[in-house]
Amino acid sequence: MSIDRRHLLKYIAGAGLFSLTAPLLPAEEQVARATRGMPAPRIQDISVIETEPAGVRLTVVKITTDQDGLYGYGCATFTQRADLVKPAVEKYLKPFLLNKATDRIEDIWQSCYDSSYWKNGPVLNNALSGIDQALWDIKGRQAGMPVYQLVGGKCREAVDTYAHASGNEFQEVVENAKQYMAQGFRNVRVQVGIPGMAGYGSSHSGAVPLKALHDKPLFEPAYDMRRSLKLLEISRKELGEEVGLLHDMHERLTPNEAVLFCKEAEQYKMFFLEDPLSPEDLGYFQQIRQNCATPIAMGELFNSPHEWQPLIEGRLIDYIRVHVSQAGGFSPARKIAILAEQYGVKTAWHGPGDVSPVGHMANVTLDIACYNFGIQEYSPFNERTQAIFHGCPEMKDGYLWVNEKPGWGIEIDEKEAAKSPFTPGQNNLNGGWGEIRLRDGTVIKQ
Amino acid sequence: MSIDRRHLLKYIAGAGLFSLTAPLLPAEEQVARATRGMPAPRIQDISVIETEPAGVRLTVVKITTDQDGLYGYGCATFTQRADLVKPAVEKYLKPFLLNKATDRIEDIWQSCYDSSYWKNGPVLNNALSGIDQALWDIKGRQAGMPVYQLVGGKCREAVDTYAHASGNEFQEVVENAKQYMAQGFRNVRVQVGIPGMAGYGSSHSGAVPLKALHDKPLFEPAYDMRRSLKLLEISRKELGEEVGLLHDMHERLTPNEAVLFCKEAEQYKMFFLEDPLSPEDLGYFQQIRQNCATPIAMGELFNSPHEWQPLIEGRLIDYIRVHVSQAGGFSPARKIAILAEQYGVKTAWHGPGDVSPVGHMANVTLDIACYNFGIQEYSPFNERTQAIFHGCPEMKDGYLWVNEKPGWGIEIDEKEAAKSPFTPGQNNLNGGWGEIRLRDGTVIKQ
Amino acid sequence: MSIDRRHLLKYIAGAGLFSLTAPLLPAEEQVARATRGMPAPRIQDISVIETEPAGVRLTVVKITTDQDGLYGYGCATFTQRADLVKPAVEKYLKPFLLNKATDRIEDIWQSCYDSSYWKNGPVLNNALSGIDQALWDIKGRQAGMPVYQLVGGKCREAVDTYAHASGNEFQEVVENAKQYMAQGFRNVRVQVGIPGMAGYGSSHSGAVPLKALHDKPLFEPAYDMRRSLKLLEISRKELGEEVGLLHDMHERLTPNEAVLFCKEAEQYKMFFLEDPLSPEDLGYFQQIRQNCATPIAMGELFNSPHEWQPLIEGRLIDYIRVHVSQAGGFSPARKIAILAEQYGVKTAWHGPGDVSPVGHMANVTLDIACYNFGIQEYSPFNERTQAIFHGCPEMKDGYLWVNEKPGWGIEIDEKEAAKSPFTPGQNNLNGGWGEIRLRDGTVIKQ
Amino acid sequence: MSIDRRHLLKYIAGAGLFSLTAPLLPAEEQVARATRGMPAPRIQDISVIETEPAGVRLTVVKITTDQDGLYGYGCATFTQRADLVKPAVEKYLKPFLLNKATDRIEDIWQSCYDSSYWKNGPVLNNALSGIDQALWDIKGRQAGMPVYQLVGGKCREAVDTYAHASGNEFQEVVENAKQYMAQGFRNVRVQVGIPGMAGYGSSHSGAVPLKALHDKPLFEPAYDMRRSLKLLEISRKELGEEVGLLHDMHERLTPNEAVLFCKEAEQYKMFFLEDPLSPEDLGYFQQIRQNCATPIAMGELFNSPHEWQPLIEGRLIDYIRVHVSQAGGFSPARKIAILAEQYGVKTAWHGPGDVSPVGHMANVTLDIACYNFGIQEYSPFNERTQAIFHGCPEMKDGYLWVNEKPGWGIEIDEKEAAKSPFTPGQNNLNGGWGEIRLRDGTVIKQ
Repeated sequence: MSIDRRHLLKYIAGAGLFSLTAPLLPAEEQVARATRGMPAPRIQDISVIETEPAGVRLTVVKITTDQDGLYGYGCATFTQRADLVKPAVEKYLKPFLLNKATDRIEDIWQSCYDSSYWKNGPVLNNALSGIDQALWDIKGRQAGMPVYQLVGGKCREAVDTYAHASGNEFQEVVENAKQYMAQGFRNVRVQVGIPGMAGYGSSHSGAVPLKALHDKPLFEPAYDMRRSLKLLEISRKELGEEVGLLHDMHERLTPNEAVLFCKEAEQYKMFFLEDPLSPEDLGYFQQIRQNCATPIAMGELFNSPHEWQPLIEGRLIDYIRVHVSQAGGFSPARKIAILAEQYGVKTAWHGPGDVSPVGHMANVTLDIACYNFGIQEYSPFNERTQAIFHGCPEMKDGYLWVNEKPGWGIEIDEKEAAKSPFTPGQNNLNGGWGEIRLRDGTVIKQ
Repeated sequence: MSIDRRHLLKYIAGAGLFSLTAPLLPAEEQVARATRGMPAPRIQDISVIETEPAGVRLTVVKITTDQDGLYGYGCATFTQRADLVKPAVEKYLKPFLLNKATDRIEDIWQSCYDSSYWKNGPVLNNALSGIDQALWDIKGRQAGMPVYQLVGGKCREAVDTYAHASGNEFQEVVENAKQYMAQGFRNVRVQVGIPGMAGYGSSHSGAVPLKALHDKPLFEPAYDMRRSLKLLEISRKELGEEVGLLHDMHERLTPNEAVLFCKEAEQYKMFFLEDPLSPEDLGYFQQIRQNCATPIAMGELFNSPHEWQPLIEGRLIDYIRVHVSQAGGFSPARKIAILAEQYGVKTAWHGPGDVSPVGHMANVTLDIACYNFGIQEYSPFNERTQAIFHGCPEMKDGYLWVNEKPGWGIEIDEKEAAKSPFTPGQNNLNGGWGEIRLRDGTVIKQ
Repeated sequence: MSIDRRHLLKYIAGAGLFSLTAPLLPAEEQVARATRGMPAPRIQDISVIETEPAGVRLTVVKITTDQDGLYGYGCATFTQRADLVKPAVEKYLKPFLLNKATDRIEDIWQSCYDSSYWKNGPVLNNALSGIDQALWDIKGRQAGMPVYQLVGGKCREAVDTYAHASGNEFQEVVENAKQYMAQGFRNVRVQVGIPGMAGYGSSHSGAVPLKALHDKPLFEPAYDMRRSLKLLEISRKELGEEVGLLHDMHERLTPNEAVLFCKEAEQYKMFFLEDPLSPEDLGYFQQIRQNCATPIAMGELFNSPHEWQPLIEGRLIDYIRVHVSQAGGFSPARKIAILAEQYGVKTAWHGPGDVSPVGHMANVTLDIACYNFGIQEYSPFNERTQAIFHGCPEMKDGYLWVNEKPGWGIEIDEKEAAKSPFTPGQNNLNGGWGEIRLRDGTVIKQ
Repeated sequence: MSIDRRHLLKYIAGAGLFSLTAPLLPAEEQVARATRGMPAPRIQDISVIETEPAGVRLTVVKITTDQDGLYGYGCATFTQRADLVKPAVEKYLKPFLLNKATDRIEDIWQSCYDSSYWKNGPVLNNALSGIDQALWDIKGRQAGMPVYQLVGGKCREAVDTYAHASGNEFQEVVENAKQYMAQGFRNVRVQVGIPGMAGYGSSHSGAVPLKALHDKPLFEPAYDMRRSLKLLEISRKELGEEVGLLHDMHERLTPNEAVLFCKEAEQYKMFFLEDPLSPEDLGYFQQIRQNCATPIAMGELFNSPHEWQPLIEGRLIDYIRVHVSQAGGFSPARKIAILAEQYGVKTAWHGPGDVSPVGHMANVTLDIACYNFGIQEYSPFNERTQAIFHGCPEMKDGYLWVNEKPGWGIEIDEKEAAKSPFTPGQNNLNGGWGEIRLRDGTVIKQ
C-alpha cells in the first residue's frame, strides 16, 4: 500500500476523523516539528471580525497562517470604544506582525506590548488580546488540543457559575433568583432598582423620591446603600442559607460608605460583594479588611498591574475579577491567576457581558485549568450569537461544560457574523457612562 | 454718539486692539456673565488637526463654539498610535460633547473620563487631553488672559531648560554639550552611542563588540551601563562642576543594575538621572533611595495615578516627568503638580519631543505658574512647525519665555498644517519599539 | 469712524455693558496683554475693613490697584484675635507688597508666607489669606469671570449644605431639625445641651448633676458622651433614615472615649462625626478607622500642612474641614482640595461661622468647582451683614446658589461696614475658650 | 478507498512520518478529542529509573499510558537521599495514580501534594516532581510539541549560561576562567580553595593556617571571606570588565559577615553573588539591600513557598535559583517564574548539578520560554550520561540550544542506564555535608 502523505492526511480529515475545528495541519505540523529546523507556521494575514448579534459590539481578531486551514481567533471586545480597536489591530499590530512565526506567543506579547512605547489602557490591551488569544487558538489547533490541555488540563469537571437576578422591586428579584435556583444555579447575584434612579443591574422607572437639580440620569449613593442592604436581608431570608448570594456595588458609593456597606453585609454571609471601590480608591481596601470579613471581588475595570498586584499581594480581596481582554489577553490573565494562587486569592473573571464567545472560552479555559478558580459570571449567549459562534460552552444545572475541540473550541461563521453588523451611530452603549449624576448635578464615577 | 454694541466690539477687534488670538468674544462674554443667567458658550464643533512637520505625528483637537471667533486648541499627540486618537475624538467624544457648555472644564473632564467605562491608557487619555486643553484655551481667550494667569500667574520670569547633547563618541558629546553651554544653557543631558547597539539618545553604527543570535536592533544593558557611567565621568570632568548634568537611562537596565547605576552616578553630582526603572518595576525605587542620594526623575510613560501617586507620596523621586497629554491633559497634570508640591517633588514635564507646540505651551504654562517647577526639557521646533504653530515660546540663553496672548497663546495656520500631512504607512516611529533585543534574542522593554 | 481707544472702552462701561462688578479694566487688560510687555496692574494700596454686624468680628483686606476701579477683597477673619490681624497686614504685608504686580498670586503667596521667617499660625495665615483672596478677586474681575470659572468651572448646579439644629433637650433639637428639613435641608447637625454644662452647640442652664470644685463653666466628657449618643439614637429614630445626620464632637472627649463614641455612633448611619479628636491627638485616628466605618470630618483648627497631610494621605478622615483663611487663603485651600481628591477624601470647609461673606464665597467657590466636594456648613448671614456685603450666595431648599459676577461676586458697602465697628473690649466672644473646666478644676482643650 | 482508521494511523507512524519521539498517538488523540467524551490516555504504569553515570545518583520517573508508545519521563533526583525517593514513588504515588487520566497535570499535582497530609520537603517534592514532569513529557508528545511550545514558545534563540572555574590558587582560577571565555562563555563562576580548608567549589589540600581542635574537614568563615574577596578583585582585574563574574558564597558566612561580603563585592560589578545566607537567615536580606546594590541569587535549597515568596515579593533578590525538582516539578517552578516576573526578579535555576538530563530540560524549557529568564548554570553531561540520555541540549559558544522534539525531547536508553547502577553504600556523595566544622569543633551549616 503506497499512499502519498498529504493525500493521506487529507483523507483523514475528509473521513470526518477531524472536525472542522481540528484541521489537517496539526498532524502535518507534528511531522514538521519532529524534524529539526522545519519552520513554524507564519502569520499570513490578520483581520478583524465585528458583529453585534445581541446589542453589544463584539470584536474578534482572526489570524491566518501560511499553513492550509490553520488559523485562530482572539477576543478584542471593547464594546464602548469598539471603533478604536479595529484600527489598532489593522494599522499597527498587523504590519508589525505579518510573517512572524506564530509559535512564539510570549515573545510576540512582550514585543507588541512595547511597540507603542506608551502602553496599557483598554484600546491597546484589547487589540493585543485579540492577537494573543488568536495565537493560543492556533497553538491548540496545531497540537490538536483545547488550550486548557496545553496549560495543564482540567482541575475540575465543569465550571460553577452565578446568574444575574434583577428586578424593580424586592419580590421581583427574589422570584427571579428562585427561578435560577430551580434551574440548578447554586449562586445568584441580586440587584434591585431604586425608584427613579439609574441603578446598576436594574434601573427603576418609578416615582423619583427626591428632587434633582438636573434632568440627567440620577443616582444617590445613600438610597442605593439602604435599598441594596435591604435586598440582601430579604434575599437571604427568602432564598435560604444555602444559596451563594452575590451583589455588585459597582463602585458607586463613596469609599467610606463602601466600607460600611461591606461591614453591614457581613451578617448576610455573602458569596462575595463585587466592586465596592472604584479603581481610584484602592487604598481603602485596607479599611474594609479591618472592619469585616465579607468576601470581596474586584477588578473588572483594571488594565494595569499596579491595580491588581497590590490587592493580591496585600490579600485585600478574595476574588480577582479582571476582564481578560482588557488586561491584554490570555497570557497576562494566566499570570494574574498564578500570582493570585500564591496569595490565596481566587478567580472570578468578568464576562460574558462585553465578551465574545471566543473571549468567554478564554475565561472558561482559565476556570477549568487554574487550581484557584472561584466562580464564573454567567449570562446566556442568545440564538443569534450562537448562530455565529459555534461551540459555546454548554450550561447545565448552573455549570458550564467545555467541549474537547482544539484551541478555544469555537468556530465562527463569518457570513452569519456579517449579517449582524455594528449598529451605526450608537457608540455609547451601556446606559450612558459619564452622564449619571447626583441630585446636585455632580457626575459620578462608576 | 450711538453705537451698536456688536458693531463696537467688532470695531475694537478691527482696529487691531485685539490680536487674532484675543478675539472679539471675550468682551462680549464678559457682558454676558455680568448679567445673571446668560448662557455660557457651547461646543459647536470638534475637529482634529493632524500634521507632521518634523517627522513626528502631531494631533491637535480644535473646539469651536457658538460664539463668533471663540475656539480653542488642545494637544492630543500620541505619535506612535496617532491614527487611533482621531477616531477616539471624532466618534466618541465629539457626539458626547456637542452643545455642552465650554466653561465646565472639570465636569467635562470627569464625565469624558468615565464615558468609556474602561478608562486610562494612552489612546483615551490623549483624546481627553485634546478636549481638556482646548477648553482651557477657550477659557483663557474668553478671559483675555494666558492660561498661566488663570491659575495664579507667573512664579518666575522664564523657564529654565536642559538641552540634549548626544554623540557616537564621548568627545562628540562633550563638544555638543559645550556648544549648548556657549548658547547659555545651564543644564545639558548627555547620551552616548554604544558601537553597534541601539542606544537611546544616540545610536552608534560602529563595529559590534559582541555576537548576537539575531539580526534585529541589538542592546545589552551591561555595555550601556559601563559606557554611560564613563560618559558621566568624562562629562563632569570636561564640562566643569557648574553645569547641570542629566542623563536618560530610558528604563533599559535591570532593576538591580539601575540601583547600581544610580549609586555609581552619585559622585558625578547629577542634576538628575531619568527613568532608571520601567513602570513595571516601580517597587525598586525604595532600593535606589536606600543606596544613594542621586536625584531621580521619572514618569514620561505614566498614564495611571497608580504610577505617579506612590512615587510622589513615598518621596521616591525628585522630579515628576509625566507627559501631560498622556496623563489626560492640563487638568490632571496640574493636580499632579499640586500633589508633588506638597511632597517636595519638582516637575520636569516630558516634551517637547512627541508634543505639539500647543501641548508644549501646556508644559510651559505649568512651568511658569507652579511653585514646584524643576526644569523643562528642551528641543527646538523647526521652521515648518513654527510656520504652522504661531506663538511658540521663545528660547533665549537657555530660558523659555512665554508670550502674553490669551489661552495658550498659540494660533494654528490650518492651511499650512494641511501641507504637512501624516506620512502614509510609517506607523511605527521612534526606532522600532518592540524590536530591540538582547544578544540572545530576548526583546527588551523600554 | 475714529474713536479714541480709552474713550471707547469707557463708553462701553458707561453704556452699562459692564456692571459695577465687571469693570472697565478687563477689556483694556486684554489689549495690554495682547501687546507684549504691557504692565500688569500693580498694588496701589492695601487696607483693612473691620466690622461686626452679627457678634463676630470680621476682617477683610482690600487691595486697590493702579487701574481705575480695579480692586479686590479677601477674608482675614480671626475673630478671637482680630486686633492682631490688622497690624499684621498693615505693618508687614502692605509695605512688602506695595507696587507689586497683582497677577502673580502664587508668587506673592509664597513670598509673603516666607517673609516672616517663622510662619504658619492663625495670625499670619489670616493676614496672608486676606491678601491671597483679594488678588483672586482682582484676577476674576480682570477676566470678567467668577473665580470658580478661572479654576475650571462648575462641577454641580448648586452647593448642598447642612444646618445646625440645637436645643437644651432632645425634643427641642428634633423639632429644630424638622423645621430645617421642612425648608428643604437634606442634612442637619444635631447638638444637645447637658444640664448645667457648657455644651458645644447648645449649652444648658439646667440643674447641675454633679458637684464641681470650682465655679467656672463646667464640662465632663462622660456626660457629654452618654447624652450625645442618646441624641443620635433619638434623632435617627424620629427624623427618619433619609436625612443626613451630623454631629460635632468638638474635640472634648479623651482619645479613647472618642474612639468609642465613633464606634457606638456607627449604627446611626451618620453623614459624619466632626472633630472627634483635638489636633494634639491626630495619632488616634488610626484607631478610629480600625474600630468602625463611621464617616469622620476633621480640620477646622488646622493651620499647618503637618495636620492635614497625614490624615488625607492615610485616608484617615472622610471630610477635610479646614477653615480657608486659617490655612492661608484660597490658594493653599485649593491645593488641599486637590490633594484630598487624589486620596478619595471630600471637602467640608469650615464656616460661615467666623467667616465674612467674602471668605464664605471662597468656600463656596471651592464647593462648586472641586470635583471632590462633600458638603458645606450653613448658617445664614443676618440682615446687617447683607447690608454691608452685597452678593452673598442665595439659599434655596438647602442649596447655596452662586452668582455669576466676576471675582468673588461680593461688593462691600464700606460706609455700612463702618456703622458696625468692633465692639470695644470684648475680645473673647465665642463662650470663653480656656475657661471650661472638669469638675476637679482641670481646664479642657476643645 | 476504505482504510481502517487505526491501521491508517499506524501506517503513518510506520512510514516514518512520525519519529520515535513523536509517536503514533497524538494523531489518534486528536481524533479522540474531536469526538466528545473519548477518553484521555490513562496511567498504566509508573516505574523508577536509577542510574549513576557520573558520580551523582540520578532518579527518573517513567509513566507509561494505555496508548501504544505514549509515555513520559520526569526527574526526581535527590542524590543525597536517593533511596527514599524511589519508594516514595512506588509505594505511595503509584497506587494513588494508576489508571488516572494523564492530561490533568495540575489536578494530579495538587492531589498528590496533599496526599501525604504532611507535605513539602525534598523527598516528597522530588517524587512529585518525577510524576509532574513525566506528565508534561506525555502532554508534549501527545501534542507533537516540545513543552516550551505548550507554554507559549521561545522568548529567545538560545539559553545563556555560566561555567564553573575553580582552583586551589587565584591564578589557577583565572586560567580556568580564561579557558571558558575562550570557548565563548560570557559568564564564569569563580571559586578558590583555602589552604587546608573544605572550600566550596574548590577544596585546597595545602597547609592549614590555623590549629583546629578536631580532625574533621575544617572551615573558618573569616578566611573564606578574605580569600574570596581577594579572588573577586583579581578576577575582575585579570578577566576584564566584560565578563559576567559570579561567586557562590554557599551560605557559609554568618549573617553579618554575609552583609559585609556583599557590600565589599559591589565594587567588582558582579553578575551575581549566590546564596549569601542560609535558608534559616532570610530575614537578613533586607540588610543586604540597604547596604549595597550587589545582585543576589538565592534559592537552590528552597522547598517551601515560605522561602521564595517573601524574597520575591520583597524584591530582596535578583535571581531565584530554585532546584526545580526540589520545588515539586515543572508546574510549581513555572508558577515561581511567573511570580518572579511580576516583581522584576529573574530566574537562574539550579543545576545541572544534581539533576538528570530530563530535569535539566525542565530547566532549559523554563529558560527558553519565560520572559524573565536570567541565566542558566552550566556543567557538561559526560559521555556515559549522554549514552543513556539522548537529546541533551547542545552547548555552543556558551549557549544551550534546545531541540524541537516533543515533550522534553529526551529519550532514555534504559538498558544503558541499567549498566550504571547506583554505587552501593556511598550515600553521602558531595563532600560530607554535616561534617565540616569550625576550628573549635562546631559543625557549620551550608
